[in-house]
Amino acid sequence: MDLGIDRQALVPVVQQIVSAVTEWIRKGGMTPGTRLPSIRQLALDNLLSQSNVVEAFDRLVAQGVLASKQGSGFVVAQPPTSHENHWYEGAEQGWAAFTDGPLGELKLGCGWLPDTWRESDDISYAVREVSRTDTQGLFSYSPPLGLLALREQLFKRLTRIKIATSLDRILTTNGASHAQDLLIRTLLKAGDTVVVETPGYGNLYRQLAFHGVMLLQVPRTHGGPDIPALEALLRNHRPKCLFINSLYHNPTGTSLCQGVAERLLELAHSEDFLIIEEDIFGDLQHANCTRLAALPHDDRVIYVSSFSKTLSSALRVGYLSASTAVIAQLASLKTLTGIGTSRFAEAVVATLLANGTYRKWVQRLRKRLNTQMADTLQVLEDEEWQVFAVPSGGMFLWARPGATDHSRLQACARRLSVLLSPGALFNPGGEHSDWLRINVAYAADQRALALFRAMGPARSTSTILKTTGM
Amino acid sequence: MDLGIDRQALVPVVQQIVSAVTEWIRKGGMTPGTRLPSIRQLALDNLLSQSNVVEAFDRLVAQGVLASKQGSGFVVAQPPTSHENHWYEGAEQGWAAFTDGPLGELKLGCGWLPDTWRESDDISYAVREVSRTDTQGLFSYSPPLGLLALREQLFKRLTRIKIATSLDRILTTNGASHAQDLLIRTLLKAGDTVVVETPGYGNLYRQLAFHGVMLLQVPRTHGGPDIPALEALLRNHRPKCLFINSLYHNPTGTSLCQGVAERLLELAHSEDFLIIEEDIFGDLQHANCTRLAALPHDDRVIYVSSFSKTLSSALRVGYLSASTAVIAQLASLKTLTGIGTSRFAEAVVATLLANGTYRKWVQRLRKRLNTQMADTLQVLEDEEWQVFAVPSGGMFLWARPGATDHSRLQACARRLSVLLSPGALFNPGGEHSDWLRINVAYAADQRALALFRAMGPARSTSTILKTTGM
Repeated sequence: MDLGIDRQALVPVVQQIVSAVTEWIRKGGMTPGTRLPSIRQLALDNLLSQSNVVEAFDRLVAQGVLASKQGSGFVVAQPPTSHENHWYEGAEQGWAAFTDGPLGELKLGCGWLPDTWRESDDISYAVREVSRTDTQGLFSYSPPLGLLALREQLFKRLTRIKIATSLDRILTTNGASHAQDLLIRTLLKAGDTVVVETPGYGNLYRQLAFHGVMLLQVPRTHGGPDIPALEALLRNHRPKCLFINSLYHNPTGTSLCQGVAERLLELAHSEDFLIIEEDIFGDLQHANCTRLAALPHDDRVIYVSSFSKTLSSALRVGYLSASTAVIAQLASLKTLTGIGTSRFAEAVVATLLANGTYRKWVQRLRKRLNTQMADTLQVLEDEEWQVFAVPSGGMFLWARPGATDHSRLQACARRLSVLLSPGALFNPGGEHSDWLRINVAYAADQRALALFRAMGPARSTSTILKTTGM
Repeated sequence: MDLGIDRQALVPVVQQIVSAVTEWIRKGGMTPGTRLPSIRQLALDNLLSQSNVVEAFDRLVAQGVLASKQGSGFVVAQPPTSHENHWYEGAEQGWAAFTDGPLGELKLGCGWLPDTWRESDDISYAVREVSRTDTQGLFSYSPPLGLLALREQLFKRLTRIKIATSLDRILTTNGASHAQDLLIRTLLKAGDTVVVETPGYGNLYRQLAFHGVMLLQVPRTHGGPDIPALEALLRNHRPKCLFINSLYHNPTGTSLCQGVAERLLELAHSEDFLIIEEDIFGDLQHANCTRLAALPHDDRVIYVSSFSKTLSSALRVGYLSASTAVIAQLASLKTLTGIGTSRFAEAVVATLLANGTYRKWVQRLRKRLNTQMADTLQVLEDEEWQVFAVPSGGMFLWARPGATDHSRLQACARRLSVLLSPGALFNPGGEHSDWLRINVAYAADQRALALFRAMGPARSTSTILKTTGM
């Protein structure tokens, strides 16, 4: 089987294998169950390393293109029963989130950066540095609160953004979702009520629902949660917590304004609830921002962040800042349920923070995202799409075509191989919504531009098909 | 402040800093609150890298010797209120587990290998290899079931030990405790009843109790759980699961015999319960062993293991094998509560498994542990200690002095700077027990030998003190 790999191409070899196998199945009309050549044979035939073929098969299995068969290698998988899987389902849908689309689609609605935006030299350097110099980092458990060297860097970072904390008020986690899980298990019990923003992060809704917690929904406005709506909820309910993104809210891209922040803190005091402020895009901060944890809050605000969206999703390093009493409970649960976080990953992140590499990387990232954000906003304006609010930074836009025709949008996206994150993914009940989350890091791709144009004004279906060559 | 660091010494620099600071506090009679020189200053004064000082302070804070003070560096901590902390409290006690004792005690009761047993070249190589060749490994999320390249290696390992599984029946986790947490949350609800072995792993008891699960205790005998006792329990209760260590049981070191295994599987079928078989020491297997998951079990047995005890505790890589239906539920919860495991760590472990390094390392480890086991058994026999059962492998012995005098044992251990894991840590209710868990990897140390001798026959207290120079 000749995969036609081109070593001079810009496309990584693994991606080429994935595409070639997908094409082989599609063009050859291979039926489910058809056996693939062995990894060893494919590697030999195409002068590839076996690890590249393994990696490609990994992706193909995750994408549902191939299936592994015990003792007899890989076969063509059953095709998905519906083309709904062409809609990008994001981290919000679990399984589909970690795969490229089966046909190499553009992940326009994706919750993270494209692989092509990553810079591996700095992180490789830190990884080698830790492996060379830090025996404990290679072998030992991390202390319950997390590696001190990392917590010291986090303390500096938090101090820089005016969040008052101390080393014993910082706990490391396996990313922000792990932090949320520890908080939910520690602070809430089944039957408790909490307030969430809608639209919002689907995985958080499901975490809370899994724990048996009741969700009260407060609409997200341009400047944060809708205060009159929240006040109305508080007249009839006694929520224990409010979960919020202050900066570059997922999915709307909006940020909290000072007045709303102050009113939220007043309400948290008078109505006696905690605020869980998740700030995973916060390192993309462009200028002065309003964070609840940076205002006087008397331990009412718990701050959660991570390095998954900026530095690496592979290392699983997140953290939170809370009162020492809450930290003690969380650390105990963290130990109980997983013994601790990865000392190695924490040492790598601490190295990148300490040597200034992370700061410089985030600066470059911010600049690049801001350019893409401006360009995307311009295209959407030209094509008369409606934008919920102009974000002051981050990677998300919340937008919809001027003339909303959901089935046409869906058809267009499918034809253009664009995976979308439809609004329904960001509602607790999965209700339909015309809005889409757009990750501007993917929005300069020709397929995205074609979609924006196709859904723009005064273009008939035939024009679209002509423009996009379909 | 001159720490008197000796770069030619065999003792690692960080350990020397820890000892020097501890001595400085003890000999100088420094009172709690006394401020330490800054990390920068200490590093300058002693020609040390700041990272070494940070690492040492990390340990000192974890040990409760130093405390960090917001904005003003480090101070001498309040001393512990009781000398009970001189008793080693193991992973079983959470906080104390990840630290060396405050005075550099010998961790005779420890649940893992000494740092001096670790070999860093192989793992460093794998870390560099992944960072050099695997961009996705550095940056991307791992698929919900875990990296395919790792699961393929796990499939091979499981097949070698006769456990029938397939790639879609294997799920990776952040170590075995994380696997247990996912299982408990998926399979059990508050009020459910399970059977645990006693003595057993304290962290598991607490995980179950945290979830509101009721524990039925079945005594661990030489050949596994006491079958008549289990049958008696089953006459009055309907447990959902039995949690068991088949090989090198923690803490007794005993292994399951074939007859008990077969009876357990019969009971699991007739009384309709699942068996969670944790096998984290299983790679230390010496010869043919009996594992429940290797016998026909009709999806009644869920197999859990990890690389924390053999390869590295820092990477947090564990896994389990179960039916595809259970795996699907676990994978969904794993995604919900932490998005996934570390792709980087999984790629490192996959590399070490694929290139044969892990197999060779475990062979060396097994040989070394077997020698230590034999030597320790000989010393204990000479000193007339009682051994619960002669283990066929692994790192644990369950033993007690011939003449049980708990307070004398405790006093001796304190004088000799030996941290013990007393039997109470391995009882669900923390009831007193004369038995001690002994990790043979630490048992050749002079302090351990002195303790064994001191608690041997026909030696008066004055002899002990003379022998040990106290």
